[in-house]
Amino acid sequence: MILTETDRAALEAARAQSEPTRRATVPALEAMLYQPVPVLDHGFVRVIDYMGDDAAVVQAARVSYGRGTRKISEDAGLIRYLMRHRHSTPFEMCEIKFHVKLPIFVARQWIRHRTASVNEYSARYSVMDREFYVPAPDQLAAQSLSNRQGRGTVLAGEEAQTVLSLLRDDAERNYAHYTYMLNEAESGAEPDPGRQGLARELARMNLTLNYYTQWYWKINLHNLFHFLSLRADPHAQHEIRVYAEAMLDMVRAWVPLSAAAFEDYRLGAVSFSARMLVLLRLMLAGETVTQAESGLSKREWTEFMAVLGRVPPA
Amino acid sequence: MILTETDRAALEAARAQSEPTRRATVPALEAMLYQPVPVLDHGFVRVIDYMGDDAAVVQAARVSYGRGTRKISEDAGLIRYLMRHRHSTPFEMCEIKFHVKLPIFVARQWIRHRTASVNEYSARYSVMDREFYVPAPDQLAAQSLSNRQGRGTVLAGEEAQTVLSLLRDDAERNYAHYTYMLNEAESGAEPDPGRQGLARELARMNLTLNYYTQWYWKINLHNLFHFLSLRADPHAQHEIRVYAEAMLDMVRAWVPLSAAAFEDYRLGAVSFSARMLVLLRLMLAGETVTQAESGLSKREWTEFMAVLGRVPPA
Amino acid sequence: MILTETDRAALEAARAQSEPTRRATVPALEAMLYQPVPVLDHGFVRVIDYMGDDAAVVQAARVSYGRGTRKISEDAGLIRYLMRHRHSTPFEMCEIKFHVKLPIFVARQWIRHRTASVNEYSARYSVMDREFYVPAPDQLAAQSLSNRQGRGTVLAGEEAQTVLSLLRDDAERNYAHYTYMLNEAESGAEPDPGRQGLARELARMNLTLNYYTQWYWKINLHNLFHFLSLRADPHAQHEIRVYAEAMLDMVRAWVPLSAAAFEDYRLGAVSFSARMLVLLRLMLAGETVTQAESGLSKREWTEFMAVLGRVPPA
Amino acid sequence: MILTETDRAALEAARAQSEPTRRATVPALEAMLYQPVPVLDHGFVRVIDYMGDDAAVVQAARVSYGRGTRKISEDAGLIRYLMRHRHSTPFEMCEIKFHVKLPIFVARQWIRHRTASVNEYSARYSVMDREFYVPAPDQLAAQSLSNRQGRGTVLAGEEAQTVLSLLRDDAERNYAHYTYMLNEAESGAEPDPGRQGLARELARMNLTLNYYTQWYWKINLHNLFHFLSLRADPHAQHEIRVYAEAMLDMVRAWVPLSAAAFEDYRLGAVSFSARMLVLLRLMLAGETVTQAESGLSKREWTEFMAVLGRVPPA
Repeated sequence: MILTETDRAALEAARAQSEPTRRATVPALEAMLYQPVPVLDHGFVRVIDYMGDDAAVVQAARVSYGRGTRKISEDAGLIRYLMRHRHSTPFEMCEIKFHVKLPIFVARQWIRHRTASVNEYSARYSVMDREFYVPAPDQLAAQSLSNRQGRGTVLAGEEAQTVLSLLRDDAERNYAHYTYMLNEAESGAEPDPGRQGLARELARMNLTLNYYTQWYWKINLHNLFHFLSLRADPHAQHEIRVYAEAMLDMVRAWVPLSAAAFEDYRLGAVSFSARMLVLLRLMLAGETVTQAESGLSKREWTEFMAVLGRVPPA
Repeated sequence: MILTETDRAALEAARAQSEPTRRATVPALEAMLYQPVPVLDHGFVRVIDYMGDDAAVVQAARVSYGRGTRKISEDAGLIRYLMRHRHSTPFEMCEIKFHVKLPIFVARQWIRHRTASVNEYSARYSVMDREFYVPAPDQLAAQSLSNRQGRGTVLAGEEAQTVLSLLRDDAERNYAHYTYMLNEAESGAEPDPGRQGLARELARMNLTLNYYTQWYWKINLHNLFHFLSLRADPHAQHEIRVYAEAMLDMVRAWVPLSAAAFEDYRLGAVSFSARMLVLLRLMLAGETVTQAESGLSKREWTEFMAVLGRVPPA
Repeated sequence: MILTETDRAALEAARAQSEPTRRATVPALEAMLYQPVPVLDHGFVRVIDYMGDDAAVVQAARVSYGRGTRKISEDAGLIRYLMRHRHSTPFEMCEIKFHVKLPIFVARQWIRHRTASVNEYSARYSVMDREFYVPAPDQLAAQSLSNRQGRGTVLAGEEAQTVLSLLRDDAERNYAHYTYMLNEAESGAEPDPGRQGLARELARMNLTLNYYTQWYWKINLHNLFHFLSLRADPHAQHEIRVYAEAMLDMVRAWVPLSAAAFEDYRLGAVSFSARMLVLLRLMLAGETVTQAESGLSKREWTEFMAVLGRVPPA
Repeated sequence: MILTETDRAALEAARAQSEPTRRATVPALEAMLYQPVPVLDHGFVRVIDYMGDDAAVVQAARVSYGRGTRKISEDAGLIRYLMRHRHSTPFEMCEIKFHVKLPIFVARQWIRHRTASVNEYSARYSVMDREFYVPAPDQLAAQSLSNRQGRGTVLAGEEAQTVLSLLRDDAERNYAHYTYMLNEAESGAEPDPGRQGLARELARMNLTLNYYTQWYWKINLHNLFHFLSLRADPHAQHEIRVYAEAMLDMVRAWVPLSAAAFEDYRLGAVSFSARMLVLLRLMLAGETVTQAESGLSKREWTEFMAVLGRVPPA
């Protein structure tokens, strides 16, 4: 994460400021405000602003006149009830805004979540920074043999070295050519007066997908939970999961009751199909069930047994 | 607007509370927080919470590290530029949450705006209050003769009296029957032990569309501007326009630069079609243009002349 | 369901028409097109148009060049996989459009689903029909004693008679006053030249919430499944569930593989929290688990036991 | 545009098929179905499916029982009225689905429109094709001197040659390294058994932003018009505008009345602020207005004069 002196000073100035407010305020999240949390080799995520707290969820569910809170235990019970029964609208009443620095290929996955507001740094308008992502050695994984969109074991030895060199060299060469084509002072180079310089909106196409971009990203708590349920999941690609995990930590500080309900009922929850429920009842009654009789495909059966922590009967 | 003692105390308690925050804070809107502004005969709108300010719009447009502000004049210029060129995403970075009490037929128009978060008081779950809307005498309008969905002159004399009586009597009778059918203590009546009482989710259907409901309504500034451009417009039905106007006042206190740009470029703006632009240029060049030659339909021509403040040439 | 001669003729004309198309076509749904299916006492739902079929889901998941289908069995497997793992975007690639006639209080619940396109009959612009909903005797239920937003036993005898009379009389009287206040030929009455007539946008407020309205409602298959998962559920209010069930029948005709996957993995599925999964594994290992030790609240425990088809141990 | 034999055969098979349907059908668009229209050097756009026609817009606006059409002239009038007064919901009742092949940097702009359904070719799951965009010589533009996010004059001579070589060489080298790192048969190369091969989800990050991706993209007519109003605009970047123009041609074939209204009232329309309208009236009354007195900033004044086709008075 590269912060210029100007950026750093701006962050400190923002953190130093404090005003009185009548709004719902969460000291644990206030402590994190504006503070970039490093993610990957040059990325970060930081909270810019937030609206609401656990009590605001309760308050909206009750359409009440005052603040939501009665007692913590009552609020927790209501929040768990809302989460369990997928009454999602009260969670929409909280909002959070992040500033994120992330590789473009991660941004491409992330942006598929359409329920957020986004302002991205414009490479039509500005020159991109010379920062690109290269995986840490323990993340340099081979293609999974069982899952077409997953990772297998970690590459080692010469293959790992070669891959890292290729990624670095290509990113650096492409950036050098990017600034050469731009031929302008803002890119840090001395412009050649004999050349006009390619338009920024065109030159950017020479950058690789591991270059870092940044954006402001604002979302309500319900939609954030949906994002986290997919991206903090073990099946998510590592490079987006680390962002989701950093944000989940912030959510725990912000709305501890809602976050706990989410982790219990959504993130750690499992769903069984109508057919699986029938099988489960049989198993609880002591009957032996086999894949052949189960009505489940082999793939479903394997997933089912794995969730129940069972080795499938031979 | 009926507030119980409990409601009033809850509001005062909420207003009395103050906490320090590092977030963007707007004193002029803080002063309005939790304060119900009366609308129509029993309705209100009040701000519950907000996120961001004019500087947050600027900050997002620049994807900047610190707070948005450079100088007020630069911020105003950028905000006006964004509004003029419909760069709408930075305005999505501000959010506001209202508590609104409004007649059901108004709620039905309002809810057509799908880009907000809503929690409505549930008449399946709770008993509705005995509050309904009756137009003030100066709003008791006849059907417009020229516009199928508009109002004409105000009713007077006996017709006005009769209409007001019918509206009041029907609303009161239907409410009396509503509570009779409910037959439960919560409705304020003495329950008859010989009757079971109709389910709330059914009994509510006997109420008329002028009964008041209430909801929490949360929306970002861009979508709020879209709502206001339609509902604070003179063509909007009076009963929703008065809510839009009350909210516009709050928006002026909250984000004065954005609100001014909105009023200039959206609320007070006019749009000319490609064909109208051709005619305009001819007129500015001193040529006389008639409807017959204009290529506009009579209706378009009339609208065009009206916008230009001209009596159409005979 | 009242259809005028004109409406009926229009429907027949629409059904009689047939054109060749290169688009994905589903004969079973074609057979239902434009045919109103009666719901409640005067309502209906009918399919106006559709886009896509099961193969279109497959085709989008593969971003393929031709039509989606390989073999039915492969398609079914992929569709089940997508549904199981909540890969929802391919289901967005099918679209359906309904014309629905429904009571206003049902429309108010329905419209809370924001992900559809809607055009509603306008009572600002037109006069409402004299049609209102009254529950059938077997749906005239008392308030539930255990669930604040549910129904208990059916009302009987004199109480039932009284309730039905009140609902009918109030709806009829209010409609009579509605047309009296309108004082216009279009409402079916003879206008009194001595009165101006109240504006339609105001007079409508005298109608009760059981009056029928109608709308065009268009939604993609993913969002429709979400709607059906909530509204075809036993906890949904009867008056909206009957519409959901009628639409589910149409969906079964339209996309049989997707509908089957939905019924297995969503409609009939259950979700267990992280804590419940721990308990399940203990139970499958033969251990006895009690509520006291379970870490679940009494309410959660009761729900958990009910899903497993068990009487909770005393 | 590279189509394999399999792709080509799949397209022809799809085009050859024809079924009878009762749905609204548009012969002019049927003729285009499945036919890729080339865009840029290797991209295309083709219509996969559609729902509705001009009459469907009318039918929804009237919530009518039969098909929408009365007479073409009445329909056109209503459609123009809806477009002029921004009654947008009836246009949501038509839907269209495209298959698009486009460079990644274009896809990144395009995806910011959140109101569409998208399924993109997955580079986590599959190997990317060896196809990248290089601007045609007449599009190899220098940075604009007046507009930070625009293009100026076209590069010529040696500078142009160098830029094209750099773009080509870098793209080719990065692709060669991409397949080297993958080390798998599916990428077309002979895998080296001594290497494991990097996971696809990682290797893709070495590709440049001008590589082609593809997706299915489905959107309703209202949201498509919004997309086209921004992307078929002269200020849009050339590389996305050519796609917008290709789609606009298809829209003209599909819904000629709606498309004409859109071009007149949206694409070719101009919007004047409240202040500009005051000035316009003065000018029409023959008064001379100068920037100094106008109340407009210099930038606004220049834009205003340009729209009116006037050289600003010195």
